[in-house]
Amino acid sequence: MAVGLKAPGNLHPIEGIRLAATHSGIKQDSRLKDLALVEIEDGSSVAAVFTRNRFCAAPVTVARQHLAQLPGSRYLLINSGNANAGTGVDGMDAALKSCMAVAEKAEVNPEAILPFSTGVIAAPLPVAKIIAAIPSLYASLRADNWLQAAEAIMTTDTLPKACSEQVVIDGRPVSITGISKGSGMIKPDMATMLSYVATDAMIEPEELRLLLAQAVANSFNSITVDGDTSTNDSCVLVATGTSSVRVSNSNTEFVVALTQIFEQLAQAIIRDAEGATKFVEIEVEQAPSVADAREVAYSIAHSPLVKTALFASDPNWGRILAAIGRAPVDSLDIDLVDLYLGDTCLLRQGLPDPEYTETKGQAAMTAEEISIRVNLNQGGGAARVWTSDLSYDYVKINAEYRS
Amino acid sequence: MAVGLKAPGNLHPIEGIRLAATHSGIKQDSRLKDLALVEIEDGSSVAAVFTRNRFCAAPVTVARQHLAQLPGSRYLLINSGNANAGTGVDGMDAALKSCMAVAEKAEVNPEAILPFSTGVIAAPLPVAKIIAAIPSLYASLRADNWLQAAEAIMTTDTLPKACSEQVVIDGRPVSITGISKGSGMIKPDMATMLSYVATDAMIEPEELRLLLAQAVANSFNSITVDGDTSTNDSCVLVATGTSSVRVSNSNTEFVVALTQIFEQLAQAIIRDAEGATKFVEIEVEQAPSVADAREVAYSIAHSPLVKTALFASDPNWGRILAAIGRAPVDSLDIDLVDLYLGDTCLLRQGLPDPEYTETKGQAAMTAEEISIRVNLNQGGGAARVWTSDLSYDYVKINAEYRS
Repeated sequence: MAVGLKAPGNLHPIEGIRLAATHSGIKQDSRLKDLALVEIEDGSSVAAVFTRNRFCAAPVTVARQHLAQLPGSRYLLINSGNANAGTGVDGMDAALKSCMAVAEKAEVNPEAILPFSTGVIAAPLPVAKIIAAIPSLYASLRADNWLQAAEAIMTTDTLPKACSEQVVIDGRPVSITGISKGSGMIKPDMATMLSYVATDAMIEPEELRLLLAQAVANSFNSITVDGDTSTNDSCVLVATGTSSVRVSNSNTEFVVALTQIFEQLAQAIIRDAEGATKFVEIEVEQAPSVADAREVAYSIAHSPLVKTALFASDPNWGRILAAIGRAPVDSLDIDLVDLYLGDTCLLRQGLPDPEYTETKGQAAMTAEEISIRVNLNQGGGAARVWTSDLSYDYVKINAEYRS
Repeated sequence: MAVGLKAPGNLHPIEGIRLAATHSGIKQDSRLKDLALVEIEDGSSVAAVFTRNRFCAAPVTVARQHLAQLPGSRYLLINSGNANAGTGVDGMDAALKSCMAVAEKAEVNPEAILPFSTGVIAAPLPVAKIIAAIPSLYASLRADNWLQAAEAIMTTDTLPKACSEQVVIDGRPVSITGISKGSGMIKPDMATMLSYVATDAMIEPEELRLLLAQAVANSFNSITVDGDTSTNDSCVLVATGTSSVRVSNSNTEFVVALTQIFEQLAQAIIRDAEGATKFVEIEVEQAPSVADAREVAYSIAHSPLVKTALFASDPNWGRILAAIGRAPVDSLDIDLVDLYLGDTCLLRQGLPDPEYTETKGQAAMTAEEISIRVNLNQGGGAARVWTSDLSYDYVKINAEYRS
């Protein structure tokens, strides 16, 4: 029951990118795709960010190493149904073997392959199934398979997540298309669960890394379902250059379009959060610093009591106050705080707003999309975090995930 | 469905302490007590710690001020059903008025009264009902009303929480008796939800504050249900001195008994945590520092994914790894980590233990009381945290709390 999330619309192919997806047998249900291959034309720029969870998965370690050894990655191999995390030496071996199988088929260096996995942690990766599927996967690479790839990387997602933009720069069309997955264990730290975005713009590798870092900061790095940073978070941005339109960070039109893609993909994860019945935007303004604003926003976003009140559509805003008050911000002065639920003011300068009524609060909480705005009136730091509520279904999904 | 928690046993009266409890009408159900009064004999030592949530409730502010103005507190007035938090100037006024009503009846200074409240946040305190109940409450003060007081401070608690110890010091009996409440919005910071402990030992006020700080550190300050620090946390320790046995921090027998009382009261809160089906002890050993050990322990204890796996009795220990890996401990080296579930080793030096089987993990997870032990093998810091699982009932209780 995703909140305000529709199936992806028209996805522009990116010249220089071909994709394929299949059921390799990692997932038990043979109707479900579980393996995707993305081919990147030689000469493209590739940038990636990965989880900062210290228990990072084997494919994350391998992908980091491969990218450092050979910046011109040529293939992304992504499986769902198994995270290949907490799997020790065997897990590293499996990730490397899957890369070698692609390299052999495509006649490139194994370092040109970046592996990614998502799914159950601490179970051995069935690498033989992956290797067996690679020849047919390779043979079915096509430019218009973005949706199929989005389907192949789903785990507890209820809908595939993909979006696409086209902008005209210097009179020529430039396309950006991306996919993402994720709905639980979501509090990305440097990256998201899994997301792959490509453009046909021509962008220098260093510039691309900068663009990726900026885009991720306010999208995947500003969402949370449950505060649990994954072992497998990865986000890749590819610029094939096939449009011949050269783009840099100073090109506003492109940056806006890229930001929109990242924000839509990040929002899609929250809209499809495990058990979500609400999409919640938390904005914190005039904090002593950006870091402080983020602390307050996440303190609210992670509070199980705030999240269950959201689920119940209960304007129990005392729980929001308590969450703000426990945020680790030393200089927080509660006598300056304004608090809004949608357009309804709850608290002004630390005191209950005299015009607040339970009816107003109830009306604001009943909506499917809820905005919580906190003004600390203490400086220039601001942050915006997207999150979901905590429902019976969150517990059900996560209590039954492996069974 | 409290986990391994029984109704309180024999509670030793503390000479110099009298208690009373009644239904004043704050709670709608007239069978439920909602107001308690504790009388402390003149000349007793009193120490208290309070929440560090910046949105602290009006009674917390008043109690702090009163204790600073007059260290010889004579009465504790405690209501449940309403937290008197987020209530602005009116809330402060209500807390002060309730103190004045007790002061008038008992013929003492208003500063000799410490007020405490627990319940719904951001609703006006029905102070007229409290004031009206004070004469009969005062008239019914008795030394053996500890259990009644424990009942009167309950909110979503399913059982009253109280315990008692007697030790012989210098040939003479010394008693300690305490009560506590709380089952949600539990991650005390300096104190607990509400707890009141008294002894007839003779202890200097400064010594008593030291003893309280020590006892709280490893009891109420080492538990969490949902990571939500309350606006009303308070803990009071009283030494009446009526046993004429002088005690200090160096008296091991007394310190052990006091520690046991605090640990039992803190455990009772977790055993009765909202919706709890498991009592979980998380021990982190050989961390770079105590602070680091606590970060790792709380990262596990607050993970909704670990908590739902505990509820499902699912040995999905990858989620524990992920929680350890995201703890904010810069020097954490995952290649040194050992992880145990009960006696079952899951991970040794960062690698899956070859002798681990799903059957062993399942057996360890099926128990009602679960121990998670993490050895970082990186230093001398250790911490122990008690927590509960995350069940459907946690969501139900907190989604329906105000309705």
